[in-house]
Amino acid sequence: MYNPESTIDKPTLVIDEARARTNIRSMAARACAAGVRFRPHFKTHQSAEIGEWYRQEGVTAITVSSVDMAGFFAGSGWRDISIAFPVNVRQIDTINDLAGRVRLQLLVESEEVVRLLEEKLTAPAGAWIKIDTGYGRTGIPAARTREVLSLAAAVAGSQRLRLQGLLTHSGHSYHAASRAEIRAIYDDTVAKLSGLRRALVEGGCPVALELSMGDTPCCSVVEDLSAVDEIRPGNFVYYDLTQLALGACGQEQLAAAVACPVVAAHEDRGPLVIYGGAVHFSKEALNLPDGREIFGQVAGGAGPEGKPWGPLIPEAYLVSVSQEHGIVQAPGELLRSTRIGDLLTILPVHSCLAADLLRHHYTCRG
Amino acid sequence: MYNPESTIDKPTLVIDEARARTNIRSMAARACAAGVRFRPHFKTHQSAEIGEWYRQEGVTAITVSSVDMAGFFAGSGWRDISIAFPVNVRQIDTINDLAGRVRLQLLVESEEVVRLLEEKLTAPAGAWIKIDTGYGRTGIPAARTREVLSLAAAVAGSQRLRLQGLLTHSGHSYHAASRAEIRAIYDDTVAKLSGLRRALVEGGCPVALELSMGDTPCCSVVEDLSAVDEIRPGNFVYYDLTQLALGACGQEQLAAAVACPVVAAHEDRGPLVIYGGAVHFSKEALNLPDGREIFGQVAGGAGPEGKPWGPLIPEAYLVSVSQEHGIVQAPGELLRSTRIGDLLTILPVHSCLAADLLRHHYTCRG
Repeated sequence: MYNPESTIDKPTLVIDEARARTNIRSMAARACAAGVRFRPHFKTHQSAEIGEWYRQEGVTAITVSSVDMAGFFAGSGWRDISIAFPVNVRQIDTINDLAGRVRLQLLVESEEVVRLLEEKLTAPAGAWIKIDTGYGRTGIPAARTREVLSLAAAVAGSQRLRLQGLLTHSGHSYHAASRAEIRAIYDDTVAKLSGLRRALVEGGCPVALELSMGDTPCCSVVEDLSAVDEIRPGNFVYYDLTQLALGACGQEQLAAAVACPVVAAHEDRGPLVIYGGAVHFSKEALNLPDGREIFGQVAGGAGPEGKPWGPLIPEAYLVSVSQEHGIVQAPGELLRSTRIGDLLTILPVHSCLAADLLRHHYTCRG
Repeated sequence: MYNPESTIDKPTLVIDEARARTNIRSMAARACAAGVRFRPHFKTHQSAEIGEWYRQEGVTAITVSSVDMAGFFAGSGWRDISIAFPVNVRQIDTINDLAGRVRLQLLVESEEVVRLLEEKLTAPAGAWIKIDTGYGRTGIPAARTREVLSLAAAVAGSQRLRLQGLLTHSGHSYHAASRAEIRAIYDDTVAKLSGLRRALVEGGCPVALELSMGDTPCCSVVEDLSAVDEIRPGNFVYYDLTQLALGACGQEQLAAAVACPVVAAHEDRGPLVIYGGAVHFSKEALNLPDGREIFGQVAGGAGPEGKPWGPLIPEAYLVSVSQEHGIVQAPGELLRSTRIGDLLTILPVHSCLAADLLRHHYTCRG
C-alpha cells in the first residue's frame, strides 16, 4: 500500500527516480563498454523531464516512434532524432520542418518511399533501411539481399537522403522463454545484419553501413553488444512485469508503478475494486506460468530508505480491467488490511502503454 | 479507403454524425415508448459537442464513469449527473463541489461508504445501491436481501444522501452468444431487481425504489424496456464490431471509425502496415467465430449519399497492434489498390476505448 498521506486521488503513474536513473546509467555504461552509440527510445516515457535524466548521462541522440513525438523532443532541445517508424508521408510538412531544425533520421523499406521523400523532402535527412530479422512486423526480410541492395542504391543516389545503415527491431525477444533464448535471438539478429552488410559490400553498396538494433530484452541480457553500432532500447528505463518474467530485469529495477484508489472492498472479502482500468493500464495481459492472465501485480508498503514501494506481493494480482475499474485478487492478509480510500501500488505488465495512457506522472525521489 | 483528399494525417476518430444522431434518436424513442428515463452514459463519447446532440433529443440526465468526467459535463451545462462508479472518496473535495452545483447521484455498495459520505459530504446527493445481477464486477449480489435492506436503511437514515433505488450493470450481456441470450439476461436482471425491490418493501424499506439498468446490448435488443425506471446505455451512440457480432446493431448503425495512414505496403503484397496501434485502438480483441483474434475491420470507400465510409470489407482485418503500428491482412484486391500514404478506415472492436484513447474526433456530416 502506498503512503496513505499521499495527495494522489486518481490513478497516477509513480516513477521511482533513483531506480530510473540507475537503469539509464547502467544501460549507458553497457553501451559505452561495447563502444556502441546509445540512442534510447523515448516512446516509453515521453517526458521532457525524464529526457533530462538521459542528457545528464551524456546521451545526445534519441529514438521516437512518431513524427509528433519527434516534434515534442525537438522542442525540448534534442538535436539528433531517429523516427523508428515507417515514414508517414501524410505528415511531410512536419517532417520537413523537423529536418530543417534537427539531425533527423528516417526509416525506409521500399523504393516507393524513397521516391516520395526525394520528391517532397525540402531538407536532408538520414535514412536507415528497416530489416526484418524475424519479428515479422515491418521491414525487408534479411535474406532478400538483392531487394536491400537495390533500395540502398536508391537511397545512396538520392539528393535528400543520407544512407546510415541497417536497422532492426527484434521484438520477438519479448516472447522468449529464457535468457538463453534472448541471447540466441541477439546472436541470430547480429548474424543476419552482419551477413547482409557483407553481402551488400560484395554487391557494390557504395556506403559503409552501420547496424542498429534495440529491444530491451537483448540489450539487458547480452553481455557484449559490440557487434552492432547503435542500440535503441526504451522500455528498460522503467522495466515492467513482462521484463521481469523474461529475466531481463530484477524487482529492484522496476521503476514505474500505478497508484490506484481502492473504491470497493466487499464485506465477505472478495476481490478489491480499484479506480484503475483499461484506460490507465491498457488491456495488455501477461500470462503467468500456470496460464492465468494478469494485468498487474500489487507491491507492498513503503520499503526501507524511503523507497516509494516495497516488494511485489505474491498472489496479489490485477486480474481484470474494464474501462475505469480494475479487480484485484489478493491473499486474505492484504484484503483484511485494505480499506476503501486506500491507495494500492500496482506494477504494470507493460510500462510503455501505461505511461502513454496516464500522460502525467508523479516522481518519487526515494 | 477514406477520401484521399482528406487532410487527416494521423490516426483520427471519425464520427458519422447522421448515424450517431439516428442512434441517439432511436434509443431515446425506445425509452420514451417504454416510459423509462433515458440517462445515457457519456463515457463512450466524452465530448461536449456530442452531448449537445443528446440535448437536442430532449435528454437532461446523464451518466458518467468518473468524478472528472462529471466535472467536465457539469462545465458544459449538464445539471443531473450520475457517477456510475463506486465512490472514490479520495476525490471528496471535487464531489462536494459538484454536489453543490448539480443534481449529483452516487453509487453505494457498503455501509462503510455511507458512513464516509455522511461524514464528508457538504451538500446533498442522490444514492443508488449498486446490485450485482450476475456480471460479478461490483455491487451486492441480488440474493443478499438482508445486506441490501440494511444498506437501504443506512442511506435512508443519512442526512446527506437521498435514496434513489437499485442500480445494476448487466455487463455479461457483452458475452452473450445470441439475441435470445441477451433477452434472457435482461429478463433475469429485471426479475432479480424486481424481486429484490419487493423483498425490501416487505422488509420495511421506507422509500419507493427506482430500478436502473443500462447495458447497450439489452437496451438495443429487448422490445419492451418498461419493467425498469431508467436505462443508461452509452456504447450505442457509435456501436462497434463487438455490438455487431452480438447482433445488437446493424452495419448501418456503426458511427465511429478510425482513419489510419498506410505507412508500408510490401512488394510481395503481404500485410499492410498502418500508423494506428494499441495507443489508438487499445489492445481489446474480438474473437471471430473461427477463433481468429482481430482488433478492427477495414471499411470500403465512400458510399452513396456522401457517407464517410462504405461497407465492411470481408476478410480485411486489423490482425495485430503494437504501440503505434497496426498490421492489416486483406484480400489481394485491397492490397493491390492500396498505396503508401492512403488512409484506411477501420471500424474498432470497442468504440468506447478507441474514443477515450483518441480524444479528438473529426465529424462527417454525410
